[in-house]
Amino acid sequence: MTSQRASFRTIRDELSRRIAERIWLPGTLIPGEEALAEEFGAARATVNRALQELARAGILERKRRAGTRVALHPVREARFVIPRIRQEIEGRGSEYQYRLLSAEETDAPEVICARLSLLSKSGMLHVRCLHLADRVPYQYEDRWINLNTVPDARRADFKSMGPNEWLVGHAPFSNAEFTFMAGAASADEASLLQVREGDPVFIGERITWMKGQPITLAHLVHPSSHRMVTHL
Amino acid sequence: MTSQRASFRTIRDELSRRIAERIWLPGTLIPGEEALAEEFGAARATVNRALQELARAGILERKRRAGTRVALHPVREARFVIPRIRQEIEGRGSEYQYRLLSAEETDAPEVICARLSLLSKSGMLHVRCLHLADRVPYQYEDRWINLNTVPDARRADFKSMGPNEWLVGHAPFSNAEFTFMAGAASADEASLLQVREGDPVFIGERITWMKGQPITLAHLVHPSSHRMVTHL
Repeated sequence: MTSQRASFRTIRDELSRRIAERIWLPGTLIPGEEALAEEFGAARATVNRALQELARAGILERKRRAGTRVALHPVREARFVIPRIRQEIEGRGSEYQYRLLSAEETDAPEVICARLSLLSKSGMLHVRCLHLADRVPYQYEDRWINLNTVPDARRADFKSMGPNEWLVGHAPFSNAEFTFMAGAASADEASLLQVREGDPVFIGERITWMKGQPITLAHLVHPSSHRMVTHL
Repeated sequence: MTSQRASFRTIRDELSRRIAERIWLPGTLIPGEEALAEEFGAARATVNRALQELARAGILERKRRAGTRVALHPVREARFVIPRIRQEIEGRGSEYQYRLLSAEETDAPEVICARLSLLSKSGMLHVRCLHLADRVPYQYEDRWINLNTVPDARRADFKSMGPNEWLVGHAPFSNAEFTFMAGAASADEASLLQVREGDPVFIGERITWMKGQPITLAHLVHPSSHRMVTHL
């Protein structure tokens, strides 16, 4: 149980605030990991994760040995839309179709518990479904919903509405993490997406929280023809 | 030559303005493609591209037959940072290394001309380089720079500094397009990234323009261990 200790998000947000409010000016050398760990009552690894993220965002500049400074020239940011799958497909002028593959209340496997920092593996709803554009498989969704946070999901009718659409209306989130990566299609994914096993796939992973409580983890797999495009 | 006709960007920006300034209210049915094409003196395909992009951004809702409306509930947006590769790697606490593979002035192949809407294939600088994190290949960069827009790049020393870093200082851009996708490593990419040919790779493609003039197209290839992470 680490509920009394600051999370990396708390630390990240507090450091961001100091920089945004110019308590720490551009170019300033900020306190070291050890000092911050003591200040926040957190593990060094937690502080390190917060610093890493701010560095990746171009807000901090970290140099080995020379320490961490507030960036002089913050980098430019682009925005991307958190797509609702129906809008994404209809927005391309295609016909949207949805197919529920399975939905069952079950214990979450280790890897899902770890990813969501779950204290208990029970009370999880596992939903698998397919989204099609003009009758061609567009996205395979493998999703875990935390019934401890969103008990109403037990009564949701996922046969007629995808979990993404249902959650938008029923489970507002305060924080989200998006990860994009490439992978190789598993046998199951290949058969659902009508590609060959081992073919490259574009994977989006989305985790949402409401005030620190994990809501859902979605693993979204697209054929390699998929393009995620954004403009600045 | 289509310089007298509105580009899809002009149309997109004008439609966005009408929505942002509430000239067109949420839920409003907007004029059809044909009417907009006439108003802007543009091809229907150009109007369609602008509408598609606004729909993808969740600003418009398109329904087959029922026409296009201003969205009632605009979707949420996340931001991601346009990373400078050195910062991205050093931000992870890793050591950054850079290796120039080749740099030559040459004609652009058809596919590059088309991607950048180049009127002439000549005056292009082709730069290939490798970025390493802690001596492990992190990103292979295959980049075209338009010397007609950035003639100074001819005198840049890409042996000591990557084109990304050089361009940040020498070629400000007004617009950018980012595309993310999954692909299979070519033989060349595999050998440079130390993966096997055909292995999944995570690809970022970045195009920048200064006032309609294309500056550069970068094709950035990462091993499948790569994660692009953003938070909201």
